[in-house]
Amino acid sequence: MTTRQDCDVRDAEDPLRELRHQFDLPAGVIYLDGNSLGVLPKTALGRVQQVITQEWGHDLIKSWNSAGWIDLPARIGNKIARLVGADAGELVVADSTSLNLYKVLSAALRISRADAPARKLIVSERSNFPTDLYIAESLAQQHGLTLKLVDSVDEIPATLNGELAVLMLTGVNYRTGYLHDMQAITAAAHAAGALVIWDLAHSAGAVPVDLKGADADFAIGCGYKYLNGGPGAPAFVWAHPRHAERFWQPLSGWMGHAAPFQFTPNYQPAPGIQRYLCGTPAVLSMAALECGVDTLLAAEAMGGMQALRQKSLALTELFIELVDERCAKLGVRVASPRQAAQRGSQVCLSLAAPLEQASYAVVQALIARGVIGDFRAGDPADLQAMPHILRFGFTPLYIGYTEVYDAVEHLVQVLSTQEWKQEQFNQKAAVT
Amino acid sequence: MTTRQDCDVRDAEDPLRELRHQFDLPAGVIYLDGNSLGVLPKTALGRVQQVITQEWGHDLIKSWNSAGWIDLPARIGNKIARLVGADAGELVVADSTSLNLYKVLSAALRISRADAPARKLIVSERSNFPTDLYIAESLAQQHGLTLKLVDSVDEIPATLNGELAVLMLTGVNYRTGYLHDMQAITAAAHAAGALVIWDLAHSAGAVPVDLKGADADFAIGCGYKYLNGGPGAPAFVWAHPRHAERFWQPLSGWMGHAAPFQFTPNYQPAPGIQRYLCGTPAVLSMAALECGVDTLLAAEAMGGMQALRQKSLALTELFIELVDERCAKLGVRVASPRQAAQRGSQVCLSLAAPLEQASYAVVQALIARGVIGDFRAGDPADLQAMPHILRFGFTPLYIGYTEVYDAVEHLVQVLSTQEWKQEQFNQKAAVT
Repeated sequence: MTTRQDCDVRDAEDPLRELRHQFDLPAGVIYLDGNSLGVLPKTALGRVQQVITQEWGHDLIKSWNSAGWIDLPARIGNKIARLVGADAGELVVADSTSLNLYKVLSAALRISRADAPARKLIVSERSNFPTDLYIAESLAQQHGLTLKLVDSVDEIPATLNGELAVLMLTGVNYRTGYLHDMQAITAAAHAAGALVIWDLAHSAGAVPVDLKGADADFAIGCGYKYLNGGPGAPAFVWAHPRHAERFWQPLSGWMGHAAPFQFTPNYQPAPGIQRYLCGTPAVLSMAALECGVDTLLAAEAMGGMQALRQKSLALTELFIELVDERCAKLGVRVASPRQAAQRGSQVCLSLAAPLEQASYAVVQALIARGVIGDFRAGDPADLQAMPHILRFGFTPLYIGYTEVYDAVEHLVQVLSTQEWKQEQFNQKAAVT
Repeated sequence: MTTRQDCDVRDAEDPLRELRHQFDLPAGVIYLDGNSLGVLPKTALGRVQQVITQEWGHDLIKSWNSAGWIDLPARIGNKIARLVGADAGELVVADSTSLNLYKVLSAALRISRADAPARKLIVSERSNFPTDLYIAESLAQQHGLTLKLVDSVDEIPATLNGELAVLMLTGVNYRTGYLHDMQAITAAAHAAGALVIWDLAHSAGAVPVDLKGADADFAIGCGYKYLNGGPGAPAFVWAHPRHAERFWQPLSGWMGHAAPFQFTPNYQPAPGIQRYLCGTPAVLSMAALECGVDTLLAAEAMGGMQALRQKSLALTELFIELVDERCAKLGVRVASPRQAAQRGSQVCLSLAAPLEQASYAVVQALIARGVIGDFRAGDPADLQAMPHILRFGFTPLYIGYTEVYDAVEHLVQVLSTQEWKQEQFNQKAAVT
């Protein structure tokens, strides 16, 4: 059994350990929620101060040119491209994940319907992050198509047929951390004549992604999770260059125009990925996002995403091992895949009956102890199929092995002392 | 003729003069571009620092509840509502102006088509800000409707008939500063059975707006111009409560869901204006925007938008008077309405032939002297109908009478010495 001392040794020997010093981590906190909101890069405060005082305050409107504000979507996009196997000029930062999905799903449907009008299905997983399903539901309604949701990964192959227009999946499931085989699924969908959109919200910066290698069609992703871009950071969007000239962008704002500063009354989309821009970018939030993305690029000299993946798996395997050994008898079950190849950078736990209704309170009790994870409600109508979960993200840039050990120790204490029964841990907040 | 000394006296006697001290204004600059990017409120740096270090850095994910991040769109929206004649709970901050137009124009078209399927026209002005036209073009194409553009305000009445679905206008024209009579136009459009959308990008914080009084249907607006919210600040969106429950939001992201943290797979729009939210809000940019909006609310005790309007008109009238007196013989023409009731908070100038091709360089020479305005290109095919313009915004929160005087003096010097012929003033930048 792994001891705390073993963990100390692993931290001391960890070649990626120094990457942690890029961040301002609050004292006394074990932060296992980087999959929801990444921590603060030390450079972000100074950078945003510079944007506010110098670029906005002093240089004002000139900064669109002199500070390169106009290039921010492409410049940060090119950095993110290096993390997800895309090439420069193919990816831009813009708007939110939801809005970017609206753009690329519109594009994919238009291409698919032009090539094969009989294809009427959009397929996704019922367990996909809801905003993706809401956007797909909207577009399916508008275009007279059907959004078909599968209940398990095993059902996907049967949907890859002549009815399928677009397969829309999230690379790593936001609840369970299940990691799809992007290359195999994309190839199978292409063989069936369909297009594939990947949501990389829980993949970019968390696991190696090779969009070009997988021959994906479109991808979107989030700036504020593993990319450490700050609360509500702008999102990103990528299209394979084979599609980049081919689609009409329904959210046709002026920043996606071929010549936005000619102020012409007719829309002419910019060549390539620039047409995925819409309105004026939120510069302050963009500046912080760039600092976050830079914390991942700092790992490139140490093996990059491959090295981070190795450490991520070591962290999640240690967590699973310790939970199995120390918490199973307290009613805790591992709800994430045990196979490394199927697991992203997070591990979710569920509590066996009669404890399952205590899941929320257990998470709150852990937070009060400084172990920050989060609670995701199950399906009240079928907790067997979709249990309440305790979700813990392990971001290898800043989480260490001893922290994993201590998090499990706190969980043992919360459960064995029934600390979670305290009233303050059972009051629901607006955001969970 | 007004002297510089007269202007000093007017500044000294100006009861709104103290509002200027809310801002960090760069030394040696006369900033007449607040209609493009408002100046930096002194509170913004500290507020954003607090968000970064305390709310993001220290409290992390807890800040969605503890710092009220989840309430930002409604909280700031309620403040903006006070500036535009809307009531609390009717207006939210979200996304960009372009995206908000996509939402409300989709809504207006859906309502109109449900009530009167024969109405097939969206009407706007060819001189409207292009992004509005691009969004309308997209929706017209998607719904098989026609976007009809009028070339002058006088043509609008003839379009108010049984074919009109939605009239979509910008309250103050971004080039000329022409101010529409919102109440009269809305009433005439309603009498013709159409809905009206107002873009308040150059109105909110610039002129008094009374959305409820005018009985408007929908409105959108910009955060980074007269609201001083910082570069690319989020925009806002309003719907008259009579429509708020009636429309399906095509950009159906999770933040507009009735219960976003129940993570249900089906979209159920939130009641009222909350359904106009889509993705996760950009918190850093929202925090700065709130500081900007507060600089306008600070004027409420001094007469609010009505008092600001009085000063704005005094500033633009002074500018027109001085330009007429001192620059007419140098080839400068006032291109904005001379009637106060038809003029927003800006004045545009054009240069008579043969000087008109020097318009860009004249603006650059002024900028080099610290007088910041901007250049907006005319229609190269018809400069008579749409000349190149030199655009100057007069934001009464921080511009004084002596600055107006000095700006005109600089313009006299740039033209009389032909300073604009210098090579560096004739090089085009990416953003104009």
